[in-house]
Amino acid sequence: MRIAVIGLGLIGGSLAWDWTEAGHEVWGFSRTPETCAYALAQGMISGSLNHLQELGEQGWDGVVVCTPIADVLPTVAEVAPLVSASTLVTDVASVKGSLVRSATALCAGFVGGHPMAGTAGQGIRAAQRELFRGAVYVVTPVPETQASGLERLGILIGDLGAEVVRCDPDDHDQAVAAISHGPVWLSAALIATAREQGSLAQRLASSGFRDTSRVGGGNPALGVGMARANREAVVVQVRRYQAHLAQIQMWLEQEDWERLEDFLQQTHCARRDFRSCG
Amino acid sequence: MRIAVIGLGLIGGSLAWDWTEAGHEVWGFSRTPETCAYALAQGMISGSLNHLQELGEQGWDGVVVCTPIADVLPTVAEVAPLVSASTLVTDVASVKGSLVRSATALCAGFVGGHPMAGTAGQGIRAAQRELFRGAVYVVTPVPETQASGLERLGILIGDLGAEVVRCDPDDHDQAVAAISHGPVWLSAALIATAREQGSLAQRLASSGFRDTSRVGGGNPALGVGMARANREAVVVQVRRYQAHLAQIQMWLEQEDWERLEDFLQQTHCARRDFRSCG
Repeated sequence: MRIAVIGLGLIGGSLAWDWTEAGHEVWGFSRTPETCAYALAQGMISGSLNHLQELGEQGWDGVVVCTPIADVLPTVAEVAPLVSASTLVTDVASVKGSLVRSATALCAGFVGGHPMAGTAGQGIRAAQRELFRGAVYVVTPVPETQASGLERLGILIGDLGAEVVRCDPDDHDQAVAAISHGPVWLSAALIATAREQGSLAQRLASSGFRDTSRVGGGNPALGVGMARANREAVVVQVRRYQAHLAQIQMWLEQEDWERLEDFLQQTHCARRDFRSCG
Repeated sequence: MRIAVIGLGLIGGSLAWDWTEAGHEVWGFSRTPETCAYALAQGMISGSLNHLQELGEQGWDGVVVCTPIADVLPTVAEVAPLVSASTLVTDVASVKGSLVRSATALCAGFVGGHPMAGTAGQGIRAAQRELFRGAVYVVTPVPETQASGLERLGILIGDLGAEVVRCDPDDHDQAVAAISHGPVWLSAALIATAREQGSLAQRLASSGFRDTSRVGGGNPALGVGMARANREAVVVQVRRYQAHLAQIQMWLEQEDWERLEDFLQQTHCARRDFRSCG
Protein backbone atom coordinates (compact mmCIF):
# COMPACT_ATOMS: atom_id res chain seq x y z
CA MET A 1 0.00 0.00 0.00
CA ARG A 2 0.98 3.66 -0.34
CA ILE A 3 0.73 5.19 3.09
CA ALA A 4 1.36 8.70 4.40
CA VAL A 5 2.20 9.08 8.08
CA ILE A 6 1.48 12.61 9.31
CA GLY A 7 3.48 13.43 12.43
CA LEU A 8 6.69 11.47 12.99
CA GLY A 9 7.04 11.05 16.74
CA LEU A 10 7.49 7.89 18.76
CA ILE A 11 4.24 6.36 17.49
CA GLY A 12 4.26 7.71 13.92
CA GLY A 13 7.92 6.83 13.45
CA SER A 14 7.51 3.33 14.84
CA LEU A 15 4.41 2.62 12.72
CA ALA A 16 6.13 3.94 9.58
CA TRP A 17 9.21 1.81 10.24
CA ASP A 18 7.26 -1.44 10.64
CA TRP A 19 5.15 -0.77 7.56
CA THR A 20 8.23 0.04 5.51
CA GLU A 21 9.80 -3.22 6.67
CA ALA A 22 6.57 -5.03 5.75
CA GLY A 23 6.99 -3.81 2.16
CA HIS A 24 4.61 -0.86 2.05
CA GLU A 25 5.58 2.44 0.44
CA VAL A 26 5.55 4.83 3.37
CA TRP A 27 5.86 8.59 3.11
CA GLY A 28 6.29 10.83 6.11
CA PHE A 29 5.35 14.38 6.98
CA SER A 30 6.64 16.44 9.88
CA ARG A 31 6.58 20.18 10.53
CA THR A 32 10.27 19.83 11.41
CA PRO A 33 12.38 19.05 8.27
CA GLU A 34 15.14 17.43 10.37
CA THR A 35 12.64 14.86 11.60
CA CYS A 36 11.87 13.75 8.04
CA ALA A 37 15.58 13.70 7.21
CA TYR A 38 16.26 11.47 10.22
CA ALA A 39 13.39 9.10 9.36
CA LEU A 40 14.62 8.87 5.75
CA ALA A 41 18.21 8.26 6.84
CA GLN A 42 17.09 5.48 9.20
CA GLY A 43 15.01 3.86 6.49
CA MET A 44 11.76 4.33 8.40
CA ILE A 45 10.14 6.00 5.38
CA SER A 46 10.92 5.97 1.69
CA GLY A 47 9.81 9.52 0.92
CA SER A 48 8.82 12.73 2.65
CA LEU A 49 6.32 15.50 2.05
CA ASN A 50 7.34 19.14 2.48
CA HIS A 51 3.78 20.37 2.82
CA LEU A 52 0.54 18.62 3.69
CA GLN A 53 -0.90 20.01 0.41
CA GLU A 54 1.41 17.65 -1.53
CA LEU A 55 -0.88 14.83 -0.44
CA GLY A 56 -3.18 16.01 -3.26
CA GLU A 57 -0.57 15.28 -5.93
CA GLN A 58 -0.62 11.51 -5.49
CA GLY A 59 -3.04 8.72 -4.69
CA TRP A 60 -2.97 7.12 -1.22
CA ASP A 61 -4.28 3.89 0.23
CA GLY A 62 -3.97 5.24 3.73
CA VAL A 63 -3.19 8.42 5.65
CA VAL A 64 -2.29 7.92 9.30
CA VAL A 65 -2.54 11.00 11.51
CA CYS A 66 -0.06 10.68 14.40
CA THR A 67 -0.09 14.26 15.67
CA PRO A 68 -0.73 15.26 19.30
CA ILE A 69 -4.40 14.73 20.14
CA ALA A 70 -5.38 18.43 19.89
CA ASP A 71 -4.14 18.54 16.27
CA VAL A 72 -5.92 15.41 15.02
CA LEU A 73 -9.20 17.02 14.01
CA PRO A 74 -7.65 20.07 12.27
CA THR A 75 -5.29 17.70 10.42
CA VAL A 76 -8.13 15.40 9.31
CA ALA A 77 -10.02 18.51 8.10
CA GLU A 78 -6.95 19.53 6.07
CA VAL A 79 -6.36 16.02 4.68
CA ALA A 80 -9.97 15.17 3.73
CA PRO A 81 -10.25 17.35 0.58
CA LEU A 82 -6.81 16.20 -0.64
CA VAL A 83 -7.50 12.46 -0.77
CA SER A 84 -10.05 10.28 -2.54
CA ALA A 85 -13.21 9.13 -0.77
CA SER A 86 -11.86 5.59 -0.65
CA THR A 87 -8.60 6.51 1.08
CA LEU A 88 -8.36 5.19 4.64
CA VAL A 89 -7.71 8.07 7.03
CA THR A 90 -6.97 7.00 10.58
CA ASP A 91 -5.50 8.41 13.78
CA VAL A 92 -3.71 7.06 16.86
CA ALA A 93 -5.18 9.31 19.56
CA SER A 94 -5.78 7.79 23.00
CA VAL A 95 -9.25 9.35 23.24
CA LYS A 96 -11.85 8.41 20.66
CA GLY A 97 -15.52 9.32 21.46
CA SER A 98 -16.40 12.73 20.05
CA LEU A 99 -13.17 12.87 18.03
CA VAL A 100 -14.20 9.84 15.96
CA ARG A 101 -17.68 11.19 15.34
CA SER A 102 -16.36 14.62 14.28
CA ALA A 103 -13.58 13.17 12.13
CA THR A 104 -16.01 10.78 10.40
CA ALA A 105 -18.31 13.73 9.62
CA LEU A 106 -15.34 15.61 8.11
CA CYS A 107 -13.85 12.69 6.20
CA ALA A 108 -15.83 9.71 4.83
CA GLY A 109 -12.79 7.39 4.90
CA PHE A 110 -12.00 7.99 8.57
CA VAL A 111 -11.55 5.05 10.96
CA GLY A 112 -10.53 5.72 14.58
CA GLY A 113 -7.58 3.75 15.95
CA HIS A 114 -5.48 3.53 19.10
CA PRO A 115 -2.34 1.40 19.19
CA MET A 116 -1.80 0.60 22.86
CA ALA A 117 1.95 0.58 23.20
CA GLY A 118 4.57 3.16 24.02
CA THR A 119 7.78 3.78 25.87
CA ALA A 120 8.95 6.49 28.24
CA GLY A 121 10.60 8.16 25.25
CA GLN A 122 9.15 10.69 22.82
CA GLY A 123 10.01 12.02 19.39
CA ILE A 124 11.37 10.32 16.28
CA ARG A 125 14.60 9.25 17.98
CA ALA A 126 12.56 7.14 20.39
CA ALA A 127 10.88 5.30 17.49
CA GLN A 128 11.60 1.60 17.36
CA ARG A 129 10.83 -1.45 15.26
CA GLU A 130 8.24 -3.95 16.47
CA LEU A 131 6.94 -1.61 19.16
CA PHE A 132 3.42 -2.95 18.56
CA ARG A 133 4.18 -6.66 18.27
CA GLY A 134 1.80 -8.50 20.58
CA ALA A 135 0.11 -5.25 21.64
CA VAL A 136 -3.57 -4.38 21.39
CA TYR A 137 -4.56 -2.00 18.58
CA VAL A 138 -8.06 -0.67 19.25
CA VAL A 139 -10.29 0.16 16.29
CA THR A 140 -13.46 2.15 16.99
CA PRO A 141 -15.89 2.08 14.05
CA VAL A 142 -19.18 4.02 14.12
CA PRO A 143 -22.24 3.19 11.96
CA GLU A 144 -20.96 5.52 9.17
CA THR A 145 -17.50 3.89 9.02
CA GLN A 146 -16.65 2.43 5.59
CA ALA A 147 -16.13 -1.34 5.58
CA SER A 148 -13.25 -1.02 3.08
CA GLY A 149 -11.30 1.36 5.34
CA LEU A 150 -11.89 -0.88 8.33
CA GLU A 151 -10.59 -3.87 6.40
CA ARG A 152 -7.53 -1.99 5.15
CA LEU A 153 -6.67 -0.81 8.67
CA GLY A 154 -7.00 -4.42 9.85
CA ILE A 155 -4.39 -5.51 7.29
CA LEU A 156 -1.99 -2.75 8.35
CA ILE A 157 -2.43 -3.70 12.01
CA GLY A 158 -1.76 -7.33 11.15
CA ASP A 159 1.52 -6.23 9.54
CA LEU A 160 2.57 -4.78 12.91
CA GLY A 161 1.99 -8.09 14.68
CA ALA A 162 -0.62 -6.36 16.85
CA GLU A 163 -4.04 -7.66 17.85
CA VAL A 164 -7.17 -5.81 16.70
CA VAL A 165 -9.74 -5.09 19.42
CA ARG A 166 -12.86 -3.49 17.98
CA CYS A 167 -15.15 -1.48 20.25
CA ASP A 168 -17.42 1.52 20.53
CA PRO A 169 -15.49 4.83 20.82
CA ASP A 170 -17.17 5.79 24.10
CA ASP A 171 -16.61 2.36 25.63
CA HIS A 172 -12.95 2.74 24.65
CA ASP A 173 -12.70 6.07 26.43
CA GLN A 174 -14.17 4.73 29.65
CA ALA A 175 -11.90 1.68 29.56
CA VAL A 176 -8.71 3.69 28.97
CA ALA A 177 -9.72 6.12 31.73
CA ALA A 178 -9.68 3.08 34.04
CA ILE A 179 -6.38 1.56 32.95
CA SER A 180 -4.38 4.52 31.63
CA HIS A 181 -5.67 8.09 32.05
CA GLY A 182 -6.89 7.69 35.64
CA PRO A 183 -3.79 5.90 36.98
CA VAL A 184 -1.69 8.96 36.01
CA TRP A 185 -3.45 11.00 38.70
CA LEU A 186 -3.46 8.22 41.28
CA SER A 187 0.26 7.74 40.77
CA ALA A 188 0.88 11.50 40.87
CA ALA A 189 -0.98 11.68 44.19
CA LEU A 190 1.46 9.06 45.50
CA ILE A 191 4.49 11.10 44.46
CA ALA A 192 3.05 14.30 45.94
CA THR A 193 2.33 12.49 49.23
CA ALA A 194 5.69 10.72 49.46
CA ARG A 195 7.47 13.97 48.69
CA GLU A 196 5.92 15.54 51.80
CA GLN A 197 7.63 12.83 53.84
CA GLY A 198 11.12 14.22 53.27
CA SER A 199 14.54 12.95 52.41
CA LEU A 200 14.60 9.63 54.30
CA ALA A 201 11.67 8.39 52.21
CA GLN A 202 13.59 9.44 49.09
CA ARG A 203 16.62 7.44 50.21
CA LEU A 204 14.61 4.33 51.04
CA ALA A 205 12.48 4.17 47.89
CA SER A 206 12.92 0.89 46.03
CA SER A 207 11.27 -1.01 43.18
CA GLY A 208 7.73 -0.89 44.59
CA PHE A 209 7.75 2.88 44.71
CA ARG A 210 9.46 3.09 41.35
CA ASP A 211 6.73 1.06 39.66
CA THR A 212 3.76 2.65 41.43
CA SER A 213 5.04 6.18 40.72
CA ARG A 214 6.07 5.67 37.10
CA VAL A 215 3.00 6.95 35.26
CA GLY A 216 2.55 9.85 37.71
CA GLY A 217 6.07 11.05 36.94
CA GLY A 218 5.64 10.90 33.16
CA ASN A 219 5.21 13.63 30.55
CA PRO A 220 3.02 16.35 32.19
CA ALA A 221 1.60 17.66 28.90
CA LEU A 222 0.57 14.14 27.87
CA GLY A 223 -1.14 13.43 31.20
CA VAL A 224 -3.08 16.71 31.07
CA GLY A 225 -3.88 16.24 27.37
CA MET A 226 -5.50 12.88 28.07
CA ALA A 227 -7.44 14.23 31.07
CA ARG A 228 -8.62 17.15 28.98
CA ALA A 229 -9.78 14.97 26.12
CA ASN A 230 -11.39 12.38 28.40
CA ARG A 231 -12.37 14.55 31.34
CA GLU A 232 -15.67 13.04 32.40
CA ALA A 233 -14.42 9.46 32.44
CA VAL A 234 -11.25 10.48 34.31
CA VAL A 235 -13.25 12.34 36.98
CA VAL A 236 -15.31 9.17 37.56
CA GLN A 237 -12.11 7.20 38.18
CA VAL A 238 -10.60 9.80 40.51
CA ARG A 239 -13.84 9.85 42.50
CA ARG A 240 -13.85 6.06 42.80
CA TYR A 241 -10.22 5.95 43.96
CA GLN A 242 -11.19 8.24 46.83
CA ALA A 243 -14.20 6.09 47.73
CA HIS A 244 -12.06 2.95 47.94
CA LEU A 245 -9.36 4.77 49.92
CA ALA A 246 -11.96 6.19 52.34
CA GLN A 247 -13.22 2.64 52.90
CA ILE A 248 -9.67 1.39 53.45
CA GLN A 249 -9.00 4.22 55.89
CA MET A 250 -12.11 3.30 57.87
CA TRP A 251 -11.09 -0.34 58.07
CA LEU A 252 -7.57 0.66 59.16
CA GLU A 253 -8.97 2.92 61.87
CA GLN A 254 -11.29 0.14 63.04
CA GLU A 255 -8.41 -2.36 62.82
CA ASP A 256 -10.65 -4.57 60.71
CA TRP A 257 -7.80 -6.77 59.49
CA GLU A 258 -10.13 -9.41 58.15
CA ARG A 259 -11.90 -7.03 55.76
CA LEU A 260 -8.56 -5.51 54.73
CA GLU A 261 -7.06 -8.90 53.95
CA ASP A 262 -10.20 -9.85 52.05
CA PHE A 263 -9.87 -6.64 50.02
CA LEU A 264 -6.23 -7.40 49.13
CA GLN A 265 -7.17 -11.00 48.38
CA GLN A 266 -9.71 -9.72 45.87
CA THR A 267 -7.31 -7.28 44.22
CA HIS A 268 -4.64 -9.98 44.16
CA CYS A 269 -6.96 -12.24 42.18
CA ALA A 270 -8.60 -9.49 40.10
CA ARG A 271 -5.26 -8.22 38.82
CA ARG A 272 -4.61 -11.45 36.93
CA ASP A 273 -7.62 -10.79 34.70
CA PHE A 274 -5.94 -7.72 33.22
CA ARG A 275 -4.16 -8.40 29.97
CA SER A 276 -0.67 -7.18 30.83
CA CYS A 277 -0.64 -8.65 34.36
CA GLY A 278 -1.19 -12.37 33.78
CA MET B 1 31.76 -15.24 61.46
CA ARG B 2 29.43 -17.95 62.71
CA ILE B 3 25.91 -16.89 61.89
CA ALA B 4 22.52 -18.49 62.48
CA VAL B 5 19.66 -17.48 60.19
CA ILE B 6 16.27 -18.16 61.80
CA GLY B 7 13.54 -18.46 59.17
CA LEU B 8 14.60 -19.46 55.66
CA GLY B 9 12.27 -17.65 53.31
CA LEU B 10 13.09 -15.36 50.39
CA ILE B 11 14.99 -12.91 52.62
CA GLY B 12 16.55 -15.36 55.08
CA GLY B 13 17.59 -17.72 52.30
CA SER B 14 19.09 -14.95 50.17
CA LEU B 15 21.01 -13.46 53.10
CA ALA B 16 22.33 -16.89 54.13
CA TRP B 17 23.45 -17.64 50.58
CA ASP B 18 25.43 -14.40 50.17
CA TRP B 19 27.06 -14.77 53.58
CA THR B 20 28.01 -18.37 52.84
CA GLU B 21 29.53 -17.21 49.54
CA ALA B 22 31.40 -14.46 51.43
CA GLY B 23 33.09 -17.16 53.57
CA HIS B 24 31.01 -17.04 56.73
CA GLU B 25 29.84 -20.20 58.46
CA VAL B 26 26.08 -19.98 58.16
CA TRP B 27 23.59 -22.24 59.91
CA GLY B 28 19.90 -22.21 59.16
CA PHE B 29 16.74 -22.95 61.10
CA SER B 30 13.28 -23.50 59.71
CA ARG B 31 10.15 -25.03 61.23
CA THR B 32 9.87 -27.03 58.01
CA PRO B 33 12.68 -29.65 57.72
CA GLU B 34 12.40 -29.74 53.90
CA THR B 35 13.31 -26.05 53.80
CA CYS B 36 16.59 -26.70 55.62
CA ALA B 37 17.30 -29.67 53.39
CA TYR B 38 16.77 -27.56 50.28
CA ALA B 39 18.98 -24.74 51.61
CA LEU B 40 21.72 -27.25 52.47
CA ALA B 41 21.48 -28.94 49.07
CA GLN B 42 21.76 -25.57 47.30
CA GLY B 43 24.76 -24.60 49.38
CA MET B 44 22.99 -21.62 50.93
CA ILE B 45 23.92 -22.82 54.44
CA SER B 46 26.57 -25.16 55.75
CA GLY B 47 24.57 -26.56 58.66
CA SER B 48 21.06 -26.65 60.04
CA LEU B 49 19.46 -26.63 63.47
CA ASN B 50 16.62 -28.98 64.30
CA HIS B 51 15.42 -26.95 67.26
CA LEU B 52 15.98 -23.36 68.24
CA GLN B 53 17.27 -24.64 71.60
CA GLU B 54 20.36 -26.02 69.81
CA LEU B 55 21.55 -22.41 69.51
CA GLY B 56 22.67 -22.77 73.16
CA GLU B 57 25.12 -25.56 72.30
CA GLN B 58 27.47 -23.39 70.27
CA GLY B 59 28.85 -19.85 70.23
CA TRP B 60 27.49 -17.36 67.64
CA ASP B 61 28.73 -14.09 66.27
CA GLY B 62 25.30 -13.29 64.91
CA VAL B 63 21.71 -14.54 64.94
CA VAL B 64 19.52 -13.12 62.18
CA VAL B 65 15.77 -13.44 62.74
CA CYS B 66 14.02 -13.61 59.36
CA THR B 67 10.57 -14.80 60.47
CA PRO B 68 7.30 -13.08 59.57
CA ILE B 69 6.99 -9.82 61.48
CA ALA B 70 4.53 -11.14 64.09
CA ASP B 71 7.03 -13.83 65.12
CA VAL B 72 10.09 -11.59 65.49
CA LEU B 73 9.59 -10.58 69.11
CA PRO B 74 8.70 -14.11 70.38
CA THR B 75 11.74 -15.46 68.52
CA VAL B 76 14.08 -12.84 69.99
CA ALA B 77 12.70 -13.69 73.44
CA GLU B 78 13.50 -17.36 72.80
CA VAL B 79 16.96 -16.67 71.38
CA ALA B 80 18.15 -14.14 74.01
CA PRO B 81 18.82 -16.61 76.88
CA LEU B 82 20.58 -19.05 74.48
CA VAL B 83 23.30 -16.70 73.24
CA SER B 84 26.04 -14.65 74.89
CA ALA B 85 25.52 -10.96 75.68
CA SER B 86 27.98 -10.04 72.94
CA THR B 87 26.18 -11.97 70.17
CA LEU B 88 24.60 -9.72 67.54
CA VAL B 89 20.88 -10.48 67.27
CA THR B 90 19.16 -8.72 64.42
CA ASP B 91 15.94 -8.90 62.43
CA VAL B 92 14.77 -7.97 58.92
CA ALA B 93 11.22 -6.76 59.67
CA SER B 94 9.87 -3.89 57.60
CA VAL B 95 8.49 -2.11 60.69
CA LYS B 96 10.91 -1.05 63.40
CA GLY B 97 9.59 1.46 66.02
CA SER B 98 8.18 -0.36 69.04
CA LEU B 99 9.58 -3.69 67.85
CA VAL B 100 13.17 -2.44 68.17
CA ARG B 101 12.55 -0.96 71.62
CA SER B 102 10.93 -4.17 72.89
CA ALA B 103 13.54 -6.44 71.30
CA THR B 104 16.39 -4.37 72.76
CA ALA B 105 14.81 -4.64 76.21
CA LEU B 106 14.62 -8.43 75.79
CA CYS B 107 18.07 -8.90 74.30
CA ALA B 108 21.08 -6.66 74.94
CA GLY B 109 22.75 -7.58 71.65
CA PHE B 110 19.76 -6.65 69.48
CA VAL B 111 20.18 -4.29 66.51
CA GLY B 112 17.17 -3.57 64.27
CA GLY B 113 17.66 -3.99 60.53
CA HIS B 114 15.64 -3.81 57.33
CA PRO B 115 17.16 -4.90 54.00
CA MET B 116 15.14 -3.06 51.35
CA ALA B 117 15.01 -5.52 48.52
CA GLY B 118 12.67 -8.30 47.48
CA THR B 119 10.99 -9.97 44.57
CA ALA B 120 7.43 -11.04 43.85
CA GLY B 121 8.39 -14.53 45.03
CA GLN B 122 8.27 -15.98 48.52
CA GLY B 123 9.78 -18.94 50.32
CA ILE B 124 13.19 -20.58 50.11
CA ARG B 125 12.81 -21.46 46.42
CA ALA B 126 12.57 -17.74 45.61
CA ALA B 127 15.88 -17.05 47.39
CA GLN B 128 18.61 -15.73 45.15
CA ARG B 129 22.23 -14.65 45.28
CA GLU B 130 23.11 -10.94 45.28
CA LEU B 131 19.52 -9.92 45.97
CA PHE B 132 20.80 -7.05 48.11
CA ARG B 133 23.66 -5.82 45.92
CA GLY B 134 23.27 -2.05 45.54
CA ALA B 135 20.18 -2.01 47.79
CA VAL B 136 19.66 0.00 50.94
CA TYR B 137 19.92 -1.89 54.24
CA VAL B 138 18.44 0.23 57.01
CA VAL B 139 19.88 -0.08 60.51
CA THR B 140 17.91 1.50 63.38
CA PRO B 141 19.97 1.81 66.56
CA VAL B 142 18.48 3.18 69.77
CA PRO B 143 20.52 4.71 72.64
CA GLU B 144 20.87 1.24 74.29
CA THR B 145 22.22 -0.45 71.16
CA GLN B 146 25.70 -1.97 71.59
CA ALA B 147 28.38 -0.41 69.39
CA SER B 148 30.00 -3.83 68.79
CA GLY B 149 26.75 -5.33 67.41
CA LEU B 150 26.20 -2.30 65.20
CA GLU B 151 29.71 -2.62 63.82
CA ARG B 152 29.34 -6.36 63.20
CA LEU B 153 26.05 -5.85 61.37
CA GLY B 154 27.74 -3.19 59.25
CA ILE B 155 30.39 -5.72 58.18
CA LEU B 156 27.75 -8.31 57.27
CA ILE B 157 25.82 -5.72 55.25
CA GLY B 158 29.02 -4.76 53.44
CA ASP B 159 29.46 -8.42 52.49
CA LEU B 160 26.08 -8.26 50.73
CA GLY B 161 27.17 -5.29 48.62
CA ALA B 162 24.34 -3.27 50.21
CA GLU B 163 24.47 0.28 51.50
CA VAL B 164 23.87 0.99 55.20
CA VAL B 165 21.40 3.76 55.97
CA ARG B 166 21.21 4.44 59.70
CA CYS B 167 18.13 6.14 61.12
CA ASP B 168 15.74 6.35 64.06
CA PRO B 169 13.25 3.42 64.16
CA ASP B 170 10.20 5.72 64.12
CA ASP B 171 11.55 7.82 61.27
CA HIS B 172 12.08 4.56 59.37
CA ASP B 173 8.47 3.55 59.90
CA GLN B 174 7.10 6.84 58.62
CA ALA B 175 9.38 6.76 55.59
CA VAL B 176 8.47 3.18 54.62
CA ALA B 177 4.79 3.97 55.07
CA ALA B 178 5.29 6.62 52.38
CA ILE B 179 7.25 4.54 49.90
CA SER B 180 6.14 0.97 50.59
CA HIS B 181 3.28 0.25 53.02
CA GLY B 182 0.99 3.06 51.83
CA PRO B 183 1.40 2.41 48.07
CA VAL B 184 -0.01 -1.12 48.57
CA TRP B 185 -3.41 0.39 49.40
CA LEU B 186 -3.25 3.07 46.75
CA SER B 187 -2.44 0.45 44.15
CA ALA B 188 -5.15 -1.89 45.48
CA ALA B 189 -7.68 0.96 45.16
CA LEU B 190 -6.68 1.20 41.49
CA ILE B 191 -7.30 -2.50 40.87
CA ALA B 192 -10.64 -2.40 42.69
CA THR B 193 -11.70 0.63 40.61
CA ALA B 194 -10.51 -0.70 37.26
CA ARG B 195 -12.21 -4.01 37.96
CA GLU B 196 -15.56 -2.23 38.22
CA GLN B 197 -15.03 -1.06 34.65
CA GLY B 198 -15.50 -4.51 33.16
CA SER B 199 -13.88 -6.68 30.56
CA LEU B 200 -12.87 -4.11 27.93
CA ALA B 201 -10.60 -2.41 30.48
CA GLN B 202 -9.09 -5.81 31.24
CA ARG B 203 -8.39 -6.39 27.55
CA LEU B 204 -6.83 -2.97 27.03
CA ALA B 205 -4.55 -2.90 30.09
CA SER B 206 -0.91 -2.41 29.15
CA SER B 207 2.41 -1.65 30.87
CA GLY B 208 1.21 1.47 32.71
CA PHE B 209 -1.56 -0.44 34.46
CA ARG B 210 0.73 -3.39 35.09
CA ASP B 211 3.28 -1.23 36.91
CA THR B 212 0.82 0.90 38.87
CA SER B 213 -1.15 -2.14 40.03
CA ARG B 214 1.80 -4.37 40.92
CA VAL B 215 2.09 -3.76 44.67
CA GLY B 216 -1.70 -3.73 45.13
CA GLY B 217 -1.89 -7.21 43.63
CA GLY B 218 0.87 -8.66 45.81
CA ASN B 219 0.75 -11.02 48.79
CA PRO B 220 -2.40 -10.08 50.81
CA ALA B 221 -1.03 -11.35 54.15
CA LEU B 222 2.14 -9.31 53.70
CA GLY B 223 0.24 -6.12 52.85
CA VAL B 224 -2.04 -6.49 55.86
CA GLY B 225 0.87 -7.48 58.11
CA MET B 226 2.70 -4.27 57.28
CA ALA B 227 -0.42 -2.14 57.74
CA ARG B 228 -1.07 -3.83 61.07
CA ALA B 229 2.48 -3.26 62.32
CA ASN B 230 2.65 0.32 61.02
CA ARG B 231 -1.00 1.32 61.22
CA GLU B 232 -0.77 4.95 62.31
CA ALA B 233 1.76 5.91 59.66
CA VAL B 234 -0.19 4.06 56.94
CA VAL B 235 -3.44 5.80 57.87
CA VAL B 236 -1.67 9.16 57.50
CA GLN B 237 -0.60 8.21 53.96
CA VAL B 238 -4.05 6.94 52.95
CA ARG B 239 -5.60 10.16 54.23
CA ARG B 240 -3.12 12.27 52.25
CA TYR B 241 -3.76 10.32 49.03
CA GLN B 242 -7.43 11.21 49.34
CA ALA B 243 -6.64 14.88 49.97
CA HIS B 244 -4.50 15.08 46.82
CA LEU B 245 -7.10 13.20 44.77
CA ALA B 246 -9.89 15.49 46.05
CA GLN B 247 -7.81 18.47 44.93
CA ILE B 248 -7.20 16.87 41.53
CA GLN B 249 -10.91 16.11 41.18
CA MET B 250 -11.76 19.76 41.89
CA TRP B 251 -9.28 21.00 39.30
CA LEU B 252 -10.66 18.54 36.74
CA GLU B 253 -14.22 19.67 37.43
CA GLN B 254 -13.13 23.30 37.11
CA GLU B 255 -11.12 22.44 33.98
CA ASP B 256 -8.15 24.15 35.57
CA TRP B 257 -5.63 22.67 33.13
CA GLU B 258 -2.89 25.04 34.19
CA ARG B 259 -2.95 23.91 37.82
CA LEU B 260 -3.19 20.26 36.74
CA GLU B 261 -0.19 20.57 34.44
CA ASP B 262 1.71 22.37 37.16
CA PHE B 263 0.90 19.50 39.54
CA LEU B 264 2.18 16.87 37.07
CA GLN B 265 5.23 19.03 36.38
CA GLN B 266 6.01 18.96 40.08
CA THR B 267 5.51 15.21 40.43
CA HIS B 268 7.55 14.67 37.25
CA CYS B 269 10.49 16.53 38.82
CA ALA B 270 9.96 15.26 42.39
CA ARG B 271 10.06 11.62 41.31
CA ARG B 272 13.70 11.91 40.24
CA ASP B 273 14.72 12.64 43.84
CA PHE B 274 13.63 9.14 44.91
CA ARG B 275 16.47 6.66 44.99
CA SER B 276 15.12 4.00 42.68
CA CYS B 277 13.67 6.45 40.13
CA GLY B 278 16.69 8.47 38.98
